[in-house]
Amino acid sequence: MAAVEGTTKKKVIIDTDPGIGSPVTDPLFDGADDAMAIFVALRSPELEVLGLTTTFGNVHTALATRNALHLLEAVGRTDIPVAEGSHVTIKKVTKLRIASFVHGSDGLGNQDFPPPATKPVDQSAAAFLVEQANLYPGQVTVVALGPLTNLALAVELDPSFPKKIGQIIILGGAYSVNGNVNPAAEANIFGDPDAADIVFTCGADILAVGLNVTHQVVLTDADREKLEQCDSKYARYLCKIMGIYFDYHKDAYFIKGVYLHDPTTLIAAVNPSLLTYTEGVVRVQTVGITKGLTVFDNTKKRYGEITAWTGMPTVKVAVTVDAPAVVELMMQRLMTDD
Amino acid sequence: MAAVEGTTKKKVIIDTDPGIGSPVTDPLFDGADDAMAIFVALRSPELEVLGLTTTFGNVHTALATRNALHLLEAVGRTDIPVAEGSHVTIKKVTKLRIASFVHGSDGLGNQDFPPPATKPVDQSAAAFLVEQANLYPGQVTVVALGPLTNLALAVELDPSFPKKIGQIIILGGAYSVNGNVNPAAEANIFGDPDAADIVFTCGADILAVGLNVTHQVVLTDADREKLEQCDSKYARYLCKIMGIYFDYHKDAYFIKGVYLHDPTTLIAAVNPSLLTYTEGVVRVQTVGITKGLTVFDNTKKRYGEITAWTGMPTVKVAVTVDAPAVVELMMQRLMTDD
Repeated sequence: MAAVEGTTKKKVIIDTDPGIGSPVTDPLFDGADDAMAIFVALRSPELEVLGLTTTFGNVHTALATRNALHLLEAVGRTDIPVAEGSHVTIKKVTKLRIASFVHGSDGLGNQDFPPPATKPVDQSAAAFLVEQANLYPGQVTVVALGPLTNLALAVELDPSFPKKIGQIIILGGAYSVNGNVNPAAEANIFGDPDAADIVFTCGADILAVGLNVTHQVVLTDADREKLEQCDSKYARYLCKIMGIYFDYHKDAYFIKGVYLHDPTTLIAAVNPSLLTYTEGVVRVQTVGITKGLTVFDNTKKRYGEITAWTGMPTVKVAVTVDAPAVVELMMQRLMTDD
Repeated sequence: MAAVEGTTKKKVIIDTDPGIGSPVTDPLFDGADDAMAIFVALRSPELEVLGLTTTFGNVHTALATRNALHLLEAVGRTDIPVAEGSHVTIKKVTKLRIASFVHGSDGLGNQDFPPPATKPVDQSAAAFLVEQANLYPGQVTVVALGPLTNLALAVELDPSFPKKIGQIIILGGAYSVNGNVNPAAEANIFGDPDAADIVFTCGADILAVGLNVTHQVVLTDADREKLEQCDSKYARYLCKIMGIYFDYHKDAYFIKGVYLHDPTTLIAAVNPSLLTYTEGVVRVQTVGITKGLTVFDNTKKRYGEITAWTGMPTVKVAVTVDAPAVVELMMQRLMTDD
């Protein structure tokens, strides 16, 4: 794949929890769009994918690693390293919220994918993130599609990581809208609220893409048919795993189509001009019934008291998205082969 | 004051924390609009004010009681009973968040109002609320302008109170917008989050009016001049105590004018058609950095897990307000005498 003429490719690391399976027993399955986002990244000449780091979320971390290796193998990109992430939250909680769907004896759902021939690198996700940030200071963009444990560990591992990393684009939070785990919390933040609060307040250049934005970007039944009718290996693969994702959306959201959470976030790295954002402090509630809630301070009021938001570093929070352009770009990238 | 021809007056109890003073040391002072709301109620032929119950918030409860008695005396309505409310939160917390402004040796600010000659009734606010609900089942509207401790105590005192009370109109919460104590919490809910959660989930007919609505209703400098130029005793009194409220808004919100939180909520009882609302479950976060946050479930998603919102009674949450009509109605009521 040729670089865009006269420009440097943007170096990205995708922190991801790809689920490939059948969420028969769990209506919270939300994994097919990780695969879409990874494929769009591989097919985008604007990006150079330095590696994938894995996390828990849609599946446990070990399975996310296996699935990440499998996805790269399926499209012939085993040159890209995979670094396995934390198996537990930043506070070492081992009882994780996993979309515990049926994934059969091989752990890869009812698709019977063969086990990958490749292995993850001999380095933790956090160590890989820190290493790459040091190797290319200011130039690496992390696209974080799962709970933020690995990034929080990178901050703990190297306090200069927030300043060395170029940008962190986070799929996470629900800003002024209901969450998707419960009315308060979005799934990725809910997965490790303590890690999320560390990352949001670490001082890095952060762009958060929340449900208020991703719920505007829908892949319709008609788009799916177009994908089904084209012959690229990316589309063929995705069509195999997408059925259940569509069924889930009909059942949980009463819509015909699927939300493109992960691809939208990835495309924020490909073409940032497709989103607008506002800037302010985000803090994460870590306990109680609204655990995992993100609260953004719009700075329209001068509070008389010191608050948990006072003096903390600001982040960017996406507000609008050119949804048709995001869908079109994604389709364009997936409907052709290299 | 004559009743509206051919209609029955709506019986109301106003649960209130009227502050009258000089918030020199505390930019969070927010008390003058309680007095406005009480006066609008007294001047509204649609309403019959059964009594005032007092609570902490802008001031401690004892001072709120004194100020309530004083306000009624100032406009010759000592026929209306005042029942003193709880001095502590529902969980017996005595360290309250009070707008601890300078109120001089007499506790009534730099206005030097004489101490009231009248006394509160020999009954707690909660007992008064329960008594009136039993006396006029289904007919009493409570307009709650402070923390919800008294109402939660009424629910504890009489489990049938939620079904016997007609409606509870609550000034409280911030729905999809930032709070006014901090980015998460609105002052009345923050004052006693545990009580608020009890009330929001008690099953009564509840209409919540939050900052998302009351921040749309502004009394401008021009309106204030009109009040100053008219000769009603209500306007004269309010103009004396309003200066500091205007100064506070300039400093904290960068606006010329004041938000009409309490009058808007009271007017929701006078003319409900000036607001529209949506319906769903509201829960209150009671701990952590977002303590006092209200989270409304818009029911647009079928959650796969049992949440703190699942199966709880729904309430109405105000969404839009005809702000010019609210201001006009308030001005009309305050600019004439009986």
